[in-house]
Amino acid sequence: MSYNTFGRVFRFTTWGESHGPALGVTVDGCPPGVALDEGFVQQFLDRRRPGTSKHTTQRKEPDAVRILSGLFEGRTTGTPIQLMIENTDQRSKDYGEIAQAFRPGHADIAYHLKYGIRDYRGGGRSSARETAARVAAGGVAQAVLRELVPDLRITGYMIQMGAMHLDRARFDSSAIADNPFFLPDASAVPAWSDYLTGIRKAQDSVGAAIELLIEGCPPGLGAPVYAKLDTDLAAAMMSINAVKGVEIGEGMGAAALTGTGNADEIRMGNDGPVFASNHAGGILGGISTGQDIVLRFSVKPTSSILTPRRTIDRNGKDIELVTKGRHDPCVGIRAVPIAEAMAACVLLDHLLLDRAQTGGQRGRIGG
Amino acid sequence: MSYNTFGRVFRFTTWGESHGPALGVTVDGCPPGVALDEGFVQQFLDRRRPGTSKHTTQRKEPDAVRILSGLFEGRTTGTPIQLMIENTDQRSKDYGEIAQAFRPGHADIAYHLKYGIRDYRGGGRSSARETAARVAAGGVAQAVLRELVPDLRITGYMIQMGAMHLDRARFDSSAIADNPFFLPDASAVPAWSDYLTGIRKAQDSVGAAIELLIEGCPPGLGAPVYAKLDTDLAAAMMSINAVKGVEIGEGMGAAALTGTGNADEIRMGNDGPVFASNHAGGILGGISTGQDIVLRFSVKPTSSILTPRRTIDRNGKDIELVTKGRHDPCVGIRAVPIAEAMAACVLLDHLLLDRAQTGGQRGRIGG
Amino acid sequence: MSYNTFGRVFRFTTWGESHGPALGVTVDGCPPGVALDEGFVQQFLDRRRPGTSKHTTQRKEPDAVRILSGLFEGRTTGTPIQLMIENTDQRSKDYGEIAQAFRPGHADIAYHLKYGIRDYRGGGRSSARETAARVAAGGVAQAVLRELVPDLRITGYMIQMGAMHLDRARFDSSAIADNPFFLPDASAVPAWSDYLTGIRKAQDSVGAAIELLIEGCPPGLGAPVYAKLDTDLAAAMMSINAVKGVEIGEGMGAAALTGTGNADEIRMGNDGPVFASNHAGGILGGISTGQDIVLRFSVKPTSSILTPRRTIDRNGKDIELVTKGRHDPCVGIRAVPIAEAMAACVLLDHLLLDRAQTGGQRGRIGG
Amino acid sequence: MSYNTFGRVFRFTTWGESHGPALGVTVDGCPPGVALDEGFVQQFLDRRRPGTSKHTTQRKEPDAVRILSGLFEGRTTGTPIQLMIENTDQRSKDYGEIAQAFRPGHADIAYHLKYGIRDYRGGGRSSARETAARVAAGGVAQAVLRELVPDLRITGYMIQMGAMHLDRARFDSSAIADNPFFLPDASAVPAWSDYLTGIRKAQDSVGAAIELLIEGCPPGLGAPVYAKLDTDLAAAMMSINAVKGVEIGEGMGAAALTGTGNADEIRMGNDGPVFASNHAGGILGGISTGQDIVLRFSVKPTSSILTPRRTIDRNGKDIELVTKGRHDPCVGIRAVPIAEAMAACVLLDHLLLDRAQTGGQRGRIGG
Repeated sequence: MSYNTFGRVFRFTTWGESHGPALGVTVDGCPPGVALDEGFVQQFLDRRRPGTSKHTTQRKEPDAVRILSGLFEGRTTGTPIQLMIENTDQRSKDYGEIAQAFRPGHADIAYHLKYGIRDYRGGGRSSARETAARVAAGGVAQAVLRELVPDLRITGYMIQMGAMHLDRARFDSSAIADNPFFLPDASAVPAWSDYLTGIRKAQDSVGAAIELLIEGCPPGLGAPVYAKLDTDLAAAMMSINAVKGVEIGEGMGAAALTGTGNADEIRMGNDGPVFASNHAGGILGGISTGQDIVLRFSVKPTSSILTPRRTIDRNGKDIELVTKGRHDPCVGIRAVPIAEAMAACVLLDHLLLDRAQTGGQRGRIGG
Repeated sequence: MSYNTFGRVFRFTTWGESHGPALGVTVDGCPPGVALDEGFVQQFLDRRRPGTSKHTTQRKEPDAVRILSGLFEGRTTGTPIQLMIENTDQRSKDYGEIAQAFRPGHADIAYHLKYGIRDYRGGGRSSARETAARVAAGGVAQAVLRELVPDLRITGYMIQMGAMHLDRARFDSSAIADNPFFLPDASAVPAWSDYLTGIRKAQDSVGAAIELLIEGCPPGLGAPVYAKLDTDLAAAMMSINAVKGVEIGEGMGAAALTGTGNADEIRMGNDGPVFASNHAGGILGGISTGQDIVLRFSVKPTSSILTPRRTIDRNGKDIELVTKGRHDPCVGIRAVPIAEAMAACVLLDHLLLDRAQTGGQRGRIGG
Repeated sequence: MSYNTFGRVFRFTTWGESHGPALGVTVDGCPPGVALDEGFVQQFLDRRRPGTSKHTTQRKEPDAVRILSGLFEGRTTGTPIQLMIENTDQRSKDYGEIAQAFRPGHADIAYHLKYGIRDYRGGGRSSARETAARVAAGGVAQAVLRELVPDLRITGYMIQMGAMHLDRARFDSSAIADNPFFLPDASAVPAWSDYLTGIRKAQDSVGAAIELLIEGCPPGLGAPVYAKLDTDLAAAMMSINAVKGVEIGEGMGAAALTGTGNADEIRMGNDGPVFASNHAGGILGGISTGQDIVLRFSVKPTSSILTPRRTIDRNGKDIELVTKGRHDPCVGIRAVPIAEAMAACVLLDHLLLDRAQTGGQRGRIGG
Repeated sequence: MSYNTFGRVFRFTTWGESHGPALGVTVDGCPPGVALDEGFVQQFLDRRRPGTSKHTTQRKEPDAVRILSGLFEGRTTGTPIQLMIENTDQRSKDYGEIAQAFRPGHADIAYHLKYGIRDYRGGGRSSARETAARVAAGGVAQAVLRELVPDLRITGYMIQMGAMHLDRARFDSSAIADNPFFLPDASAVPAWSDYLTGIRKAQDSVGAAIELLIEGCPPGLGAPVYAKLDTDLAAAMMSINAVKGVEIGEGMGAAALTGTGNADEIRMGNDGPVFASNHAGGILGGISTGQDIVLRFSVKPTSSILTPRRTIDRNGKDIELVTKGRHDPCVGIRAVPIAEAMAACVLLDHLLLDRAQTGGQRGRIGG
């Protein structure tokens, strides 16, 4: 994890700005011989793509991925995989105001202070467009995981959007793919839709919370003490634009629990240990136990809003600023496929890292 | 961040088990010429040390640090600094039960599954004793920060312990050092003390939430997109034993906010930008803005409790287990100095990393 | 230095195969605000480009570089710089033979054994075309060095090609740019030219030795003990295709020397220490002293030759193979700009790494 | 390879100075369940230990290693292994002269310029005592390799010492262990002994060249293009004190060869490919082929000699300096076990790295 690189053994490096000619990702350390093509990666990008419903930005970015290296006759070769996405919908517009001013809640002022120079067009490197590159990397990871751990399933969904909360009693994973909110409750979609429409019409935006459920993760992934699986998952999520909190298992709620209540008791089942509960979220001592891994993260409201906000410009002058443009009223929605992609990369990285150290052997219990 | 190493340019590697002869940390990349001695580091270790009040484990570990390398005539030389702590209070006891059984909530089962072998004495590598090594590394970082950023101040304190919450209206930082809870409210100490005594007498334990306030952090620390300052701080906290959630600024609460409410508006002050609020927690786009950095994390209840819990042993046999020994009823208390140490290491690492890339120059605003 | 990434703080990752649609390099950690454009990088690529004389392959690859990210208004922004070169002269040909057979001296058999799959077209990832990406990265490094260390000069030249040796008594650096051999002796060019023509007409190839002279390197670059400047320079050179040996200062000849003869005695000059000799090649204890850095490396003869050679195919059948195509009779020639590029990257990386740890301050001698 | 850390997946970090209380190494990423004890590591240290013959320094350093972590019941646990060696023979002496002066050929001046402070006692961090820590790490690597690749054998021996050269016609590997020069020719030992005695009596020192022969290395270790096996081996050797040149296979001599002469032709044997020659030194495209790996490196003469040499002191004053003390007349001798240790670490690291990416599967030839 150095500057723009993520991962240890399965590593990817993203590059590109919002309004440059292209952006992309170099994936290094991918196992060889894995079936992969652009169509497979594209399906993940399509889930993240803007303009797919009225609830996301109306920018028309096809986000068509091209694979420029690392494939041969439909299989990975073990050499770097370059995935490039050309930026096509860069409206020519006057960036004069943003060039000079620092939009509140955006990285503008931080980049300016650090680098003294910034590509202000569409947020440049700090734009959420960078996440398209992560999703492409995640597509590669998913292709490998499909071969190495066929039972693994990573599912993201929204559990909160501003005042709206998922009713867990109505949890239905089959609903997730069928609504623009990645919401596992079809019955709540109209209310969420009305709510977000109201937010947008009020020239406002809203935050969100997303949960990731990882089923079928083998035990033994992760390592003490700075390569813990939960550490890396937390870093992966926190590296996504606008994320402000990450929780594993009980998360922040663990502060309220007692030890008797928090203990995940174990009994021996037919196929190995069976846990009576999952307060831990599937990870103990930084290492997966074979239970479902459960994590959550929050996404702050889109900072680009049409309601004027007070700020300053480069000359230190006090001004008021309205961030025009076509912005998501809730960036948290599109964070779902992004988080799935990051989780896929983390899991594959740890799978390979574990294979390096232990050869993939597991300690036995019983028989 | 590879296995047992943390950091990029200022890096440390911890080693050692709970009941081995010693544990320690190798600090690499430390700037040369910095005044440092064992006494300076010891003061940080003393804050973390067990046995200092009835609310922490009654093990008597002096945790006396020895510096074996990297110092010359009272100053750092720029070469690796080895800080070693001998383990002295290793009661000879019968570990037979723990050797065979997996304590619920502990890393026992995860280590067994991954490695097929584990040092079960006191938890081995997964013991919180490893955190003494981090605190020693943090002491080195603090010595360097004191010279490079004299105004920087890192303050940790508890904000929740089970049912007890800090009343922020009574926040008083001067109280923190004077009570066993690192609590910034002297008036609440008796109630917290009674509460925890009750927990302990009930043979139970309890979780906690800690907040870190970092004042005087210069702007420009952090980097897109996988070396974000908040990403690294989150990873640092999540790598601490028993931590289950991390929040920056508004944290998980950001999910409930609107964009108008979340915007930290800016005005020009005499000494630079002044923010009207700090929902962001001092970090935008992964880079510090010069505002206070605010983060929180939760610590789960101590898993070692005297109340029997159901589990299995290595033979797959269902058993009941009581974790005897001298355990903290709330490990969150001692997490305060540990978190401060990790934050010091992250900040120094980013200070040096920024110095590498930008030479420490800052973009100007105004004049 | 992980798989396809080189460097610590100034890092680059190359990607692409010989006959894929494109190849390129992602440069990460570049200081911001540095003047850079495609033309500046292109001049380095043009020096490496094939087809510039009868002594290099007659493939026509324009090697035109495009910068896709990391620049804004003619300056670096501190974000990743993607430099892409499209592959244009990929003759459609029948690769049937190479697809099945392992060319002696080539990576074919090693890649096959390791990965089980390989892009055999033109050597795929093991092709020397990858070095175009390094040269592009080196161009970025040169742009930064030009600003940070204006007096630094990196000069590569051939000192041997098969039976031909540079006569050091006739060393003339001004001649290097004016002949196809990067030879610092204009008078020897006809003989070298005749010699290489003879090699080529004999359907053979020949090895070479190159020397790098680095003038104006500031003292203090490098670090004990696994980030030594000479260690990194050696790794950088050895990572170039076909390189089989690397020497610093006296190199392998140091084995024959005595301590009295090898000592570089020091006297105090007007501007600091003056060394009476430079057996060390400008580096002591892994750290630059301010003397000229001198290193040499050898390049094996091109393995692709028209003379038939015995080998086997994937079925384990013994065959004879002629490597047709347009190959350099001496790949060592084009190694000169490649080595300069690698040296530039190493020096910049260490300059930034030193800036991280010491802030660039130097210990004083005298006054 | 960051500052004092070497390796990717099997990583070690050395620490300690020549005259501090102790030095050591933290080995991270070691596979679990491997039989290991102090005695096994000690045998490697004993081969490197000074004072074993009249041809090495007469310092009496027992170099007794203690393992402080990472072992349990005689097996590795997969957690960091700390190996510590206490410094016992630190003669109290007056370092006044060395404290102020820069010994020619030593790192003194380079460290001073970089750090502004240096532990001058015995060379501090730049002392060859650091190599004891590498040898300890190599002992751990050897223990793992013995289990994972039982047929692997790493053999180092001297091939040159000043004017003395190994007569390859008399090569006898069984002689290596029985003479103080690690010389594979018993008949030459008296002459080498006389020669070195003469050097020592002349208050001089002499350089050396060492060869490493690695038999039984599986194919497929190494990776394009910056994790090549030869790149890492070269870096490993060049990181050893006083090494000035590294060669793989034909090495610098490759510059004189033609392509027809250099081709290692292949025929199919009963157990796989058989190479008719080994100009490549066992590595093609950075990846092992299964042939013997052959590498050589040179070691410069000991810089500490009793013959006076001209230099300067910290005040910039011209002086003459004699380096008193008990120094090896040929440090190259003890470089043999050090190089073997480094090679063991590189090979294990690449074995694990390959296991990560490919799972250890190999492409088939024939059948």
